[in-house]
Amino acid sequence: MLLRLRSISSSSANAGENPAEFEPLFELARELGYRTRFLDRERLVLELTRQAGDAGGPADRSRFEDLGCVVSVLDASDAPELTSRTAERGDTVVHIGSTAFGGGSIGLIAGPCAVEDPADLLEIARAVRAAGATVLRGGAFKPRTSPHSFQGGGVDALAALADAREFTGLSIVTEVLDPRDVERVASVADALQIGSRSMSNAALLAEVGATQKPILLKRGLAATAREFLLAAEYVLAAGNPNVILCERGIRGFDNVTRNVLDLGTVAHLKTATHLPVVVDPSHAAGRPDLIAPLAKAGIAVGADGLIIEVHPRPASVHSDGAQAIAPSVFAEIVKSVSALARLEGKIVAAPRASEPSGTTKPREAEETAP
Amino acid sequence: MLLRLRSISSSSANAGENPAEFEPLFELARELGYRTRFLDRERLVLELTRQAGDAGGPADRSRFEDLGCVVSVLDASDAPELTSRTAERGDTVVHIGSTAFGGGSIGLIAGPCAVEDPADLLEIARAVRAAGATVLRGGAFKPRTSPHSFQGGGVDALAALADAREFTGLSIVTEVLDPRDVERVASVADALQIGSRSMSNAALLAEVGATQKPILLKRGLAATAREFLLAAEYVLAAGNPNVILCERGIRGFDNVTRNVLDLGTVAHLKTATHLPVVVDPSHAAGRPDLIAPLAKAGIAVGADGLIIEVHPRPASVHSDGAQAIAPSVFAEIVKSVSALARLEGKIVAAPRASEPSGTTKPREAEETAP
Amino acid sequence: MLLRLRSISSSSANAGENPAEFEPLFELARELGYRTRFLDRERLVLELTRQAGDAGGPADRSRFEDLGCVVSVLDASDAPELTSRTAERGDTVVHIGSTAFGGGSIGLIAGPCAVEDPADLLEIARAVRAAGATVLRGGAFKPRTSPHSFQGGGVDALAALADAREFTGLSIVTEVLDPRDVERVASVADALQIGSRSMSNAALLAEVGATQKPILLKRGLAATAREFLLAAEYVLAAGNPNVILCERGIRGFDNVTRNVLDLGTVAHLKTATHLPVVVDPSHAAGRPDLIAPLAKAGIAVGADGLIIEVHPRPASVHSDGAQAIAPSVFAEIVKSVSALARLEGKIVAAPRASEPSGTTKPREAEETAP
Amino acid sequence: MLLRLRSISSSSANAGENPAEFEPLFELARELGYRTRFLDRERLVLELTRQAGDAGGPADRSRFEDLGCVVSVLDASDAPELTSRTAERGDTVVHIGSTAFGGGSIGLIAGPCAVEDPADLLEIARAVRAAGATVLRGGAFKPRTSPHSFQGGGVDALAALADAREFTGLSIVTEVLDPRDVERVASVADALQIGSRSMSNAALLAEVGATQKPILLKRGLAATAREFLLAAEYVLAAGNPNVILCERGIRGFDNVTRNVLDLGTVAHLKTATHLPVVVDPSHAAGRPDLIAPLAKAGIAVGADGLIIEVHPRPASVHSDGAQAIAPSVFAEIVKSVSALARLEGKIVAAPRASEPSGTTKPREAEETAP
Repeated sequence: MLLRLRSISSSSANAGENPAEFEPLFELARELGYRTRFLDRERLVLELTRQAGDAGGPADRSRFEDLGCVVSVLDASDAPELTSRTAERGDTVVHIGSTAFGGGSIGLIAGPCAVEDPADLLEIARAVRAAGATVLRGGAFKPRTSPHSFQGGGVDALAALADAREFTGLSIVTEVLDPRDVERVASVADALQIGSRSMSNAALLAEVGATQKPILLKRGLAATAREFLLAAEYVLAAGNPNVILCERGIRGFDNVTRNVLDLGTVAHLKTATHLPVVVDPSHAAGRPDLIAPLAKAGIAVGADGLIIEVHPRPASVHSDGAQAIAPSVFAEIVKSVSALARLEGKIVAAPRASEPSGTTKPREAEETAP
Repeated sequence: MLLRLRSISSSSANAGENPAEFEPLFELARELGYRTRFLDRERLVLELTRQAGDAGGPADRSRFEDLGCVVSVLDASDAPELTSRTAERGDTVVHIGSTAFGGGSIGLIAGPCAVEDPADLLEIARAVRAAGATVLRGGAFKPRTSPHSFQGGGVDALAALADAREFTGLSIVTEVLDPRDVERVASVADALQIGSRSMSNAALLAEVGATQKPILLKRGLAATAREFLLAAEYVLAAGNPNVILCERGIRGFDNVTRNVLDLGTVAHLKTATHLPVVVDPSHAAGRPDLIAPLAKAGIAVGADGLIIEVHPRPASVHSDGAQAIAPSVFAEIVKSVSALARLEGKIVAAPRASEPSGTTKPREAEETAP
Repeated sequence: MLLRLRSISSSSANAGENPAEFEPLFELARELGYRTRFLDRERLVLELTRQAGDAGGPADRSRFEDLGCVVSVLDASDAPELTSRTAERGDTVVHIGSTAFGGGSIGLIAGPCAVEDPADLLEIARAVRAAGATVLRGGAFKPRTSPHSFQGGGVDALAALADAREFTGLSIVTEVLDPRDVERVASVADALQIGSRSMSNAALLAEVGATQKPILLKRGLAATAREFLLAAEYVLAAGNPNVILCERGIRGFDNVTRNVLDLGTVAHLKTATHLPVVVDPSHAAGRPDLIAPLAKAGIAVGADGLIIEVHPRPASVHSDGAQAIAPSVFAEIVKSVSALARLEGKIVAAPRASEPSGTTKPREAEETAP
Repeated sequence: MLLRLRSISSSSANAGENPAEFEPLFELARELGYRTRFLDRERLVLELTRQAGDAGGPADRSRFEDLGCVVSVLDASDAPELTSRTAERGDTVVHIGSTAFGGGSIGLIAGPCAVEDPADLLEIARAVRAAGATVLRGGAFKPRTSPHSFQGGGVDALAALADAREFTGLSIVTEVLDPRDVERVASVADALQIGSRSMSNAALLAEVGATQKPILLKRGLAATAREFLLAAEYVLAAGNPNVILCERGIRGFDNVTRNVLDLGTVAHLKTATHLPVVVDPSHAAGRPDLIAPLAKAGIAVGADGLIIEVHPRPASVHSDGAQAIAPSVFAEIVKSVSALARLEGKIVAAPRASEPSGTTKPREAEETAP
């Protein structure tokens, strides 16, 4: 059961900090056997749980509703609450290293699909940094359709990513697939990617929600916008507010593109949630010649960043090489995107002149004025 | 059966004009009982037909293939040929009135979903002209899911459209649903719209192909890119090269937007066909607040124009009013789109300073340098 | 505007026959300028129309609602009314020739995709009759994706179909594509097929609705159940109650079958409408090895018939040969289907022992007890 | 790299048991640094792995191909191999407790969506056993779209399931969501369900593959048949051959059913894989009135079993109660399904007259004659 509360004694700035005024509520909760937890102190969303399988009956709900400090008992227990944009809440800005996503700042993530060779990775990292990216992507643990396919370089690949960061100052984002790997991957990466196949993996979402790392959450192939937001809600409900949503194409009926890049849903998400939204044209298109137009369209529709596959020699790649673009093509995209950003009064996050390695502690999620 | 020919004696500029060198081919065709017709003189695509139901057997194909002037017998009889972009063929520019679509020119079409009241229509026409549109849309014959719904104003609405053109100088585009109405609608409209429900209506496509009016062909709700191009192929094969393709959203599984605007397919079409492509954000979104971002995304992805529903009082509209935007919002979109166009070295087609009414004879389709 | 009326003075058997009791209603309609027409005398559904584009304002609706004989003013003007199953209405039985579809009778339609050769057609007709079919299908006018594909044998093919009926006593169903062909096709065929590409072709639906021929209406590739029923509603609203709905697969994302046979919607339609529903496993599967299991599943889910492509030499077929099955396979399906029908207390419509040719006048649609 | 081998010296019955004849191959593998492992001894599929990220270069492949015992090097590393039906391999029969799925035996699984109350569960278990089910389903760990929804009764629910088995002799199947829960759930359940949200969760698939429990693997909402088989391939490749595939509806565009039950893919799977396939009409339909027709259609199309939600008081259910049917309706379905099974020469697995509790050790997967 979720309760939305009102605070009478305190201003919205420090609402929920001194919960004394809610004492009657807490007392009733104790009497009825509920544990309480603020899911969102600022918006005063309180979770009440009792034993497993107990959603709270109508009689209990009614008693809570009668309290003066309770605005509403959220009966639709599955509505996105924490991720919803509300009048009093502006854009959330999420940082990967020093790169801001949201609030007028566009972040650019680039790199190979999978980390295959440390030397190659460093070459790509330098190339995408020179072209204007500030975050390096690269898969160490790869989600693959077949058990017989290349499953990623694992721990060795993590080390190669850390080395590439050391040498270039780029922040790094890499995917985590298994809840048991979260600690290990989080000890290296600046941000954790949850892939589209894992969007509904609640155990994994809870585990990354227990870190404070920024989470790049990709939309499932056939996920509705609501299901996508509720996946983010799992992370936020676990205590981690640093979620970046990523649209990467939904399953369609045609094969001229691998997936259907759903920019209408990106436009919708910008109205529905305070979280930043980035676009992945590479996995949507599945072919290199459409990356540039789709990247530009993503920024034009209002996305807060891009994630693009870049590889100097796409033909040699084990997995998903088909859609990688050369660094020179990526550099052209950065130029176009920067011009588009200016039209909207936004800026593309630029690399610091001399970024010292190691300063990759995530900042807390910020909030802009609404 | 389609043959692709080569010309030895003549340059590509006048190829096919003097078909004397193809005499052996014509002789063989006559001997085997085929009628011949050039579907595309420039690209030397020749159609051979015999009686109904006769696609030509392997023996015949083989005899044609043996001729020196035959590059290939197009065995895959259902491939798009006339609509395909080829090395030697640049963008086709299609004009509605004086508004060019394609070849670096972006055309803007705006107006109400359906023509309901002549006075309202004139008010809207003046408003969209002031905001920067040069073509007025408005339905006289409406395709409706239910026979009990408002089916459009019919002939009276056509007259209202003609009046609006008279007073504003805007060109007009309106939908035709029935092959028996083509002549009547074409006598008034500057361009004919084929709606998404009619995309596979071969009888209607052939009928509008027999005119020289520009055809605004909307993609079917579940049509692949290939099926879309083959629908255009029906119009071109009937002799009318003036086709503008329109992406308006495909059927999806979510309902945050009415349809899924498929800009990946727009990007693909720009590589696959020489025809201009426009985007309809209104029917894709089905809600007014997403029209501006999707319109900008459409231009950023490379579309040659937009068609947008505008109505001063959306709430009062009989059909599809939900997604109409106010003229002031449309004016903002025109500004944004003009800025985007400049980034790409394109221009938004502007109204002539003093457009005389009546000069709406369609120009022939032009072709730019490749 | 549609009104649902109640009759006080008369029994349901002859309700609406003597509309004297509705005189106050007709008077008000005249006063307000509406023309009236009973769309369904039995269920007392009355249509009121004024001028084009006039759906009737709230004030008018309110005045009609105040009348004692008016049960409701159907505000949702686009709801299926005539096709809806209601408490008082049992299954509609539609006959093609002497073959009943619905009301416990299962009709079997078989034949080639397209009529290509009169001798072949007769061979197939005899084979499917021997196997247990009572209706012969065969395309004379073919809907094709490409203008360069074989478009069907046209008038010659119609004559071949008539000959096959003469010799075998099978009834014949063939597709009509163009409203201008309806009269010509209807003069020969016992039933008219509206293909999936034409499901939303309102002009064509109205034209076949003006005949009394049974209409085999195929579901569009991406049509919802509601859109499908509203397409049938066009035919019923035009005065023809003889509609058989046909599920033939919707567009999906996989290619192991050409389309996704949506038997859940067949089950839904059996609850939602009084019209008979048949299943086309051939176009859904697109491969011969799945026809038998899907045909059985169609009958098990409650369909009132099947339409199956049969050809003695599938490899030689111009269009859609890939999924045709041999007559011997079809004969096995008939056996299985007959056994399934018995389990449900239904029967497969059998050929008459000595069917005289020419007795193919359609019977009127019947109605069973609810 | 996968190799398919041929055995010259031994009959197919004991092929691969004495790998002496493959010694030259093993020697080459050692020389090149590969570890070897038979993925399937009977079909002689050998896996070669080296370090992470190393798929084997063309030079290596070529050297293996030159060996006499190598039929082929499976270059398409992502093809389903272990799950594929081949000429020499008949149906695999998988047992849950004593209930056989496949090889002419139809297994019936029934029970509530979630285990909510032990007394209720026992009531349902007795009712479904009386109606003819032999396996009880019931969720202890529930996959939920929202973190705020009821997540299942957890360990308490597992205990209730074990008790219900004790009292009724039914075998039990329940879902596992987290790889860290596999051991705990497997210690209680007779079979493990992998839900549709988890179909692509490779870590979870590998973990259940390390048990010998039968796995009920549900198809993902937008998974192709190939992706579905490759998910099963993960389980088989990990050493567990006991996989039952479950079709439960794919995401569609309409809402008359919650999902689209894809029986065409069931028919395809029966040709493509040797694994048993069951159908879940409850989650596909999402409404109780369509369960019976879809269950019958599932059996008619060739499924080896059904899984159906049954609850005596559906309205009181926390999750997914909407589609549960009453025990009496389920009993009718069992009767219909038994009659359908007889038509196909199959039988519905019946409860043993006096099933002793506790004898639920899974038998090994059997194989029928092809």
